[in-house]
Amino acid sequence: MSKKLTTRAEDYSKWYNELVVRADLAENSGVRGCMVIKPYGYAIWEKMQAQLDKMFKETGHENAYFPLFVPKSLFEAEEKNAEGFAKECAVVTHYRLKSDEENKGKLIVDPDAKLEEELVVRPTSEAIIWNTYKNWIESYRDLPILVNQWANVVRWEMRTRLFLRTAEFLWQEGHTAHATKAEALAEAEQMMNVYAEFAEDFMAVPVVKGFKTEAERFAGADETYCIEALMQDGKALQAGTSHFLGQNFAKAFDVKYTTKEGKQEHVWATSWGVSTRLMGALIMTHSDDQGLVLPPKLAPIQLVVVPIYKGLDQLEAIRAHIKPYLDELKKLGVSVKFDDRDTQKPGWKFAEYELKGVPVRVGIGNRDLANGTVEVARRDTLTKETIDITNLVETVTTLLEDIQNNIYQKAFDYRASHITEVNSFEEFKEVLENKGGFISAHWDGTTETEEKIQELTKATIRCIPLDSKEEEGVCMYTGKPSKKRVLFAKAY
Amino acid sequence: MSKKLTTRAEDYSKWYNELVVRADLAENSGVRGCMVIKPYGYAIWEKMQAQLDKMFKETGHENAYFPLFVPKSLFEAEEKNAEGFAKECAVVTHYRLKSDEENKGKLIVDPDAKLEEELVVRPTSEAIIWNTYKNWIESYRDLPILVNQWANVVRWEMRTRLFLRTAEFLWQEGHTAHATKAEALAEAEQMMNVYAEFAEDFMAVPVVKGFKTEAERFAGADETYCIEALMQDGKALQAGTSHFLGQNFAKAFDVKYTTKEGKQEHVWATSWGVSTRLMGALIMTHSDDQGLVLPPKLAPIQLVVVPIYKGLDQLEAIRAHIKPYLDELKKLGVSVKFDDRDTQKPGWKFAEYELKGVPVRVGIGNRDLANGTVEVARRDTLTKETIDITNLVETVTTLLEDIQNNIYQKAFDYRASHITEVNSFEEFKEVLENKGGFISAHWDGTTETEEKIQELTKATIRCIPLDSKEEEGVCMYTGKPSKKRVLFAKAY
Repeated sequence: MSKKLTTRAEDYSKWYNELVVRADLAENSGVRGCMVIKPYGYAIWEKMQAQLDKMFKETGHENAYFPLFVPKSLFEAEEKNAEGFAKECAVVTHYRLKSDEENKGKLIVDPDAKLEEELVVRPTSEAIIWNTYKNWIESYRDLPILVNQWANVVRWEMRTRLFLRTAEFLWQEGHTAHATKAEALAEAEQMMNVYAEFAEDFMAVPVVKGFKTEAERFAGADETYCIEALMQDGKALQAGTSHFLGQNFAKAFDVKYTTKEGKQEHVWATSWGVSTRLMGALIMTHSDDQGLVLPPKLAPIQLVVVPIYKGLDQLEAIRAHIKPYLDELKKLGVSVKFDDRDTQKPGWKFAEYELKGVPVRVGIGNRDLANGTVEVARRDTLTKETIDITNLVETVTTLLEDIQNNIYQKAFDYRASHITEVNSFEEFKEVLENKGGFISAHWDGTTETEEKIQELTKATIRCIPLDSKEEEGVCMYTGKPSKKRVLFAKAY
Repeated sequence: MSKKLTTRAEDYSKWYNELVVRADLAENSGVRGCMVIKPYGYAIWEKMQAQLDKMFKETGHENAYFPLFVPKSLFEAEEKNAEGFAKECAVVTHYRLKSDEENKGKLIVDPDAKLEEELVVRPTSEAIIWNTYKNWIESYRDLPILVNQWANVVRWEMRTRLFLRTAEFLWQEGHTAHATKAEALAEAEQMMNVYAEFAEDFMAVPVVKGFKTEAERFAGADETYCIEALMQDGKALQAGTSHFLGQNFAKAFDVKYTTKEGKQEHVWATSWGVSTRLMGALIMTHSDDQGLVLPPKLAPIQLVVVPIYKGLDQLEAIRAHIKPYLDELKKLGVSVKFDDRDTQKPGWKFAEYELKGVPVRVGIGNRDLANGTVEVARRDTLTKETIDITNLVETVTTLLEDIQNNIYQKAFDYRASHITEVNSFEEFKEVLENKGGFISAHWDGTTETEEKIQELTKATIRCIPLDSKEEEGVCMYTGKPSKKRVLFAKAY
């Protein structure tokens, strides 16, 4: 707790890595590219899961579970999807180890236990799920299928970063089957909206809703909806995607249904997912040089009370004095921790809870006891005030709402001041270099131009915003005609 | 829904397999030995998870997440553990697929993407977790560590059965670290008690608490506590285990802590787990020839209302009439489904909900509307009665409690009548053959005798019951002295 964090200004990337580890969120493991999510980090993820799960169920979805492994022959069935993920697949080839006779106590892969067909550890589950849906769907009566899965997936990334890009990560993946194209499109758009609502109302992270360009689409999708957030270093982060898969998987796995009129039609599909990557977005959007800043709605501890005492008598007097107020807060659903550890000093505890982003901290000592006061500190602004203890319940509940709104507004204002319209490639490069953020520009609609711009600047088209207006213009790079602005940014 | 289930008497094993599939709980997948858990089955598992998770948190545990993969060198560190699981490990050897140039559209494993060190897909996580704990533990202040993980694991079983034995399954695994042996032993015993409480109070499955013999212990444990349940065919099912791991993993991974007195000591460990296997126990304990029987506390739908109507007017009249009572029930926390589908007839629905084990079913038609009555059917006894609709709320809430208690009592009575004391091997074989169940007998305490009995009869020692009294006796097989009876059974 003693050493200060690297500041964002010194080294943003280092600040992030240090913060994730020192706030006890996650750490690297003994397995290349795989992280350990520590209890405090996992508690935040659990809160995210619970809220998302509730929203999925409210929109009619059920959970299920499909196998971790995808036999190679199923994996390759939808060609674009297979091609998109083949380069980063962990592959199981054997099903047994045996003692190494030349090296006592060591194990080797048993060559006699080679699988007839290799198994891919799922990088995403469309293939295994559509191979299953094939048996679930006969007629229009079996549709829609609205299923979600909470699972781990593996993508063998070469350069990994805690939460942002890891070889194994946790996510949810919704997979739905529909009778009509319109219904599938509406589902894909609905789930993008669910993600946006979750990001804004719970994570306090403002997002842009939009479409991906063809080059940035999910492998196997006809359209990818996304939500894009902006981090404090001016880089964008894709926070969730929802794919309209057309009939691609239905055709690859021959999934047809009988319509009311008795005709045979291929089924329409969507898939949509968010992952532990959201943790990265949450951390980078709000945190500061003192440590984590958490939105109260997702904070595992919303209020911490640090007693300042000498001897057990004082501790018990403080505990008894504040108990009725804490009980009342708990009854209102506030998660409260009374930190009575005698192994650490109050100052150490203050710094620890600051680092861990606990929204509200209350300090109470002997003098407070005499005066009927407590000191209340809020994490987002790092300000404190002394209040009458009889106002504690109202102060804390109001503060939790204020903090949730305040950090959203701060992130919103930052983003608002970091969406820049440009009309020339010179201007584009200048803004990208000196300011960062989203850059709104005209583009000629070709993958060629998009790739060229990326090659020259490392910026990509984050999305074609849903609310982008028709506007006559010319591509900032080629000068060819364009009817819409798109959002560019460097991205995580 | 038309075809009747195979009955238990006809073929118990076939009855089980059919029931799991036809009640929409799970099915086999396109991956050898791996199952798909369907939404209705998963909803039951979610209810189990929620309750267990609550009980773990109430006993001071937090959740975390550790990697899916275990590098071979870590896996082999604890020799007994490695030896126990090596024979059934899925092994990742490569991290990329590439196009097969000789076979367009097909993929092959890329030989250039061979891993330097093979990765074992976790069959259990002691190794990867203790390699992590090594960095978390320095002094007594860091202890205890009380962590649980909800995860998937893989054990390459040759003969698999839905829920009971699958290559991949879902489970939770608690992994705790303690300063003293006594504390670790107390933790292991506590978690066995948590499992027993969950099994009896929520699953309505009576269990015997006990120790495993040395031969049946978890690989790497010094003591394994277990809970054992009895199925309707007289076979036992191990429903949960809690292991005292001694200092085995601390020694294998060199995990020491500094005591208050400044000495260096190895840490003491436990691990404990229950899995989707519990679904198998739940199904086999209560269900009958009509289908599933679910304990109300774990039933995704506790009350289903089937309206019997002609035309939309009648349907809406029924809906309006019963709505206030259903609203009241929902307010009390009862999960209610009003099945207004017009694609199926009431008789079909009755059979479906019977098959799916919904505890209480209400039928309401035009005549009921006139008379102010409803027909209430309970799933466990397959009995029904017509009641005044004004008594619906009280009737349903009482019934849900009754059913929970009744199915527990029924299972308890069955088990009570299927624990048989024997004093000779002849008697043992006779009871095993003709009656089944638990057989309480003296045993000389050696693995040799245990294995011999298993070889001759297929029965194993399920446990040494915790409440087994000291009693002078002789081993039923060898005639050597014995001080305690143990429980034998054939087992899943």
